[in-house]
Amino acid sequence: MRSRIGGIFPPIPTVFNQAGDVDSEAIVANVERWMRTGLAGVLALGSNGEAALLDDGESDRVIDAARSAVPSDRLLLAGVGQESTRATIAAARRAARLGANLALVRPPAYYKNQMSLEVLVAHYRAVADASPIPLVLYNLPATGVLLTPPIVTTLAEHPNILGIKETSVDLERLGQFAGIGSDFRVLSGSAPVIYPALTSGAVGGILAVANVLPDACVRLFEHAIAGRHSEALALQRAITPLAQLVTTTYGVAGLKAALDLVGFAGGLPRQPLAPVNESARQQIARAIAAVS
Amino acid sequence: MRSRIGGIFPPIPTVFNQAGDVDSEAIVANVERWMRTGLAGVLALGSNGEAALLDDGESDRVIDAARSAVPSDRLLLAGVGQESTRATIAAARRAARLGANLALVRPPAYYKNQMSLEVLVAHYRAVADASPIPLVLYNLPATGVLLTPPIVTTLAEHPNILGIKETSVDLERLGQFAGIGSDFRVLSGSAPVIYPALTSGAVGGILAVANVLPDACVRLFEHAIAGRHSEALALQRAITPLAQLVTTTYGVAGLKAALDLVGFAGGLPRQPLAPVNESARQQIARAIAAVS
Amino acid sequence: MRSRIGGIFPPIPTVFNQAGDVDSEAIVANVERWMRTGLAGVLALGSNGEAALLDDGESDRVIDAARSAVPSDRLLLAGVGQESTRATIAAARRAARLGANLALVRPPAYYKNQMSLEVLVAHYRAVADASPIPLVLYNLPATGVLLTPPIVTTLAEHPNILGIKETSVDLERLGQFAGIGSDFRVLSGSAPVIYPALTSGAVGGILAVANVLPDACVRLFEHAIAGRHSEALALQRAITPLAQLVTTTYGVAGLKAALDLVGFAGGLPRQPLAPVNESARQQIARAIAAVS
Amino acid sequence: MRSRIGGIFPPIPTVFNQAGDVDSEAIVANVERWMRTGLAGVLALGSNGEAALLDDGESDRVIDAARSAVPSDRLLLAGVGQESTRATIAAARRAARLGANLALVRPPAYYKNQMSLEVLVAHYRAVADASPIPLVLYNLPATGVLLTPPIVTTLAEHPNILGIKETSVDLERLGQFAGIGSDFRVLSGSAPVIYPALTSGAVGGILAVANVLPDACVRLFEHAIAGRHSEALALQRAITPLAQLVTTTYGVAGLKAALDLVGFAGGLPRQPLAPVNESARQQIARAIAAVS
Repeated sequence: MRSRIGGIFPPIPTVFNQAGDVDSEAIVANVERWMRTGLAGVLALGSNGEAALLDDGESDRVIDAARSAVPSDRLLLAGVGQESTRATIAAARRAARLGANLALVRPPAYYKNQMSLEVLVAHYRAVADASPIPLVLYNLPATGVLLTPPIVTTLAEHPNILGIKETSVDLERLGQFAGIGSDFRVLSGSAPVIYPALTSGAVGGILAVANVLPDACVRLFEHAIAGRHSEALALQRAITPLAQLVTTTYGVAGLKAALDLVGFAGGLPRQPLAPVNESARQQIARAIAAVS
Repeated sequence: MRSRIGGIFPPIPTVFNQAGDVDSEAIVANVERWMRTGLAGVLALGSNGEAALLDDGESDRVIDAARSAVPSDRLLLAGVGQESTRATIAAARRAARLGANLALVRPPAYYKNQMSLEVLVAHYRAVADASPIPLVLYNLPATGVLLTPPIVTTLAEHPNILGIKETSVDLERLGQFAGIGSDFRVLSGSAPVIYPALTSGAVGGILAVANVLPDACVRLFEHAIAGRHSEALALQRAITPLAQLVTTTYGVAGLKAALDLVGFAGGLPRQPLAPVNESARQQIARAIAAVS
Repeated sequence: MRSRIGGIFPPIPTVFNQAGDVDSEAIVANVERWMRTGLAGVLALGSNGEAALLDDGESDRVIDAARSAVPSDRLLLAGVGQESTRATIAAARRAARLGANLALVRPPAYYKNQMSLEVLVAHYRAVADASPIPLVLYNLPATGVLLTPPIVTTLAEHPNILGIKETSVDLERLGQFAGIGSDFRVLSGSAPVIYPALTSGAVGGILAVANVLPDACVRLFEHAIAGRHSEALALQRAITPLAQLVTTTYGVAGLKAALDLVGFAGGLPRQPLAPVNESARQQIARAIAAVS
Repeated sequence: MRSRIGGIFPPIPTVFNQAGDVDSEAIVANVERWMRTGLAGVLALGSNGEAALLDDGESDRVIDAARSAVPSDRLLLAGVGQESTRATIAAARRAARLGANLALVRPPAYYKNQMSLEVLVAHYRAVADASPIPLVLYNLPATGVLLTPPIVTTLAEHPNILGIKETSVDLERLGQFAGIGSDFRVLSGSAPVIYPALTSGAVGGILAVANVLPDACVRLFEHAIAGRHSEALALQRAITPLAQLVTTTYGVAGLKAALDLVGFAGGLPRQPLAPVNESARQQIARAIAAVS
């Protein structure tokens, strides 16, 4: 399994229907189309999947829909991190039963100042021991809890923890994770630094912008792997403005608007998230056009 | 109802039994004992109640237990904040059905950088419109999302939003909330500044340390109200070290250890939270002894 | 000397003439007028004195001017903190020679992540040992270096360190400093919390707004000392909006504009600081009018 | 001049003699030895040069010493940033007179919350207009003031502003600066990310560790330029631990200890900075040995 972790994955949004409920069919249609590109698989129930806004039944329907459209030679990652250890274990078991290949586990963050090295290591070990499928750690500094190099180095020794998704522009930390050992796999979660991340030892990326521009992202990955510096840097610069718009600037609402613009099912985010306004939509449209 | 909001409330912990499940009987016994003091009521399902680590059924059992032991002339506040607007509304409705008098609503925080003034105002208005019981806002800067004076001033106009719990040592902001108008009620959530908060216009406090030392906290409140400066300042200094130990230093685990030491049911927190070690327990015991 | 530290001090701005040089005469005239009120003295060369933008000769001229107008029964505090220990000592010696009563010493902050407890204690001890006049510590969290309770408690034992100016809205920390011992004097540097600071044990304040509204600030202090709660709280609320405008909102430029509006010499700040625009000036004028 | 900016520069420390004064001879000897390697020049009076702890006369002696040992076909950069615009201009003029080729200008940071885009642009333009030598901007997030892409893009249009030193691990921002235009030169100030910075468009680096290991740093630069990925990544990983020790972990004191260990003149930092202890020295020695 370790050697299969690599390449570009889109963290897929959860599409809602008019009534505001999970639209499984739209998710299936989206995933089928992504799977006709060079993407290595998909991540369901990440931050871009509005996992924090779904209940357990809805989460299961999303995994189920994604699994039905991801071929067995590609990977289905599922976000399973919850605030309590036991809820995280329960989510990992449900994801495994529904056919996910890997469980992505963000750290608990509500009780930030109690999340010491010892507490985080104990939490992840308990989840890794109990999960039927291997884990990928998830560093998301916006949560306010950081998986530091000492924590990750310790956890990398667990046979059921195979890698980490590092979602930040800090390439010093990513470089340290990539240097832990040849078997520990690092995926970048930040498209504006995906090329330098790959030169720092990352083996791929989970990139919101890959939902919108799968081919450009896959090409960038291939240029980087092949050492075609000018082409890779040019593509890096080309995708960065759109990548910023569909993440830090407009978030999930921006990503969904971009998907609508390129013919996928996007739609509205769930409240409290608010849809983008018309001016943002046009800004996103211009950024998409600029890449093509 | 507005005029009833005032005085000292303990944010009660959720007691678990040996199997790690909610222990309703222990909660009832604790609340009955608190209600024999001058406390104005209790808050169930706050941060100290490990609300983030409970599922919906468990949350309901906690409110139910608390309600059975809080007399009708005192107040039962219930934490209902969730990441999605619709889950928050559902929680407020369940709390109302179970007899809670007020719903305490922390802001959504997972999508921090999307939580603009407009988004937060829309979220709270939707909850306030739908909730059968009035809301108290909840400012908890540790979440990374701040209810600023412009947001709170706007929300204070809603007839179903009666006040705010400000959990910080920033008395400039608390003072601004207290100045919004005579009908908007401010409760401090930070025991180390409860006396200056009361001189700044707060009408009471929701204080973890009040679980452990209800009488001292009530006395401090009464000294402050009566303008007995020396007595109030002396008690403020007396309770502060313990207040720090059961919140910022050791968190919920420290609070539960302190409860065990004074004869309430405390017990263990739920993982990922870890119990305090023996040296912490002794430090807490010394701080309790120092107040008496 | 310890017992003389108390009451309200304005941190006086450094007035520049048309050529941009220090205008000693204007400073003398301002200080003479402040000294006709109930202010306890003045602070020269604080942050509001643009100390960071002056060279040594200019700094000396400011102290000299202030001294000539502060009567001997009131106090002249002088800011002397520099990045190096030896430059700080040299500044303290020059200030003493020019007649300052107390030296206010902000912590070095350029090499933030090297400013450990040990380094800060050694720095302050070296300055305290060498300074002919007693020191007042200066906590200014905006610098990024914090004098924590353990540091301040240690330094309070030095016979030449008499107190601290705490410039923040965090009354938990201020309360801890005030509780160090009856001889360690705490001055608040934050006007929006001056009343609660006084109830927390502070003996006075160094307040930018006291330059503009000396009488109102002195009256607030006297109400607080006398336990007249309603009057103190009303004045606290009255001065807070102006206090915010002349500090966090518009900084030194706002303070100087306010002084011009009430008939003191204010003038322009030194670049990189920029003067306030007309709309800001009107906002400040309205805030002044609202207090009277 | 623009085309000459590139390659690896060490930010040289200021050596002090036993009396604690600037030791010009030791500086000359150090620089002569560095100039026998492939380094592209040196930076005097950077953060590692303890510029914040020197007076004007001392600063001049450092530039003078460095100039005498840097051949005319290599570059002497001099740090000239001060808190006031006029002091910065004066420092740039003195540096130019003493033969510096480029002036490195950190932003003013004392009045952080007044440092708006407009204020920073006006400050830098005033300095660029007045300076006889071209400027290189300096982004040092530890100061608390950030030169953002909009500010830098605006300033890059000034004919006397040629580039920026970006001292952070945030390669998204560095990548944006490198994409401003082919003539705007970006140098990384962070050795742990120097290789990915070069793949992101940087043309070189100003690296503390290059003082200690000039040959390894130059070799890494050459591998990166030539597209030798495995060799560059291996060297990146080799130098990173030492680079961290002589910057974030132990600062200038660690850098000076490292220089002593490899036969340069290092010595003690100036107070408040404290020398490293013996255990730190051994840790540094091991990190040096690990690279060779």
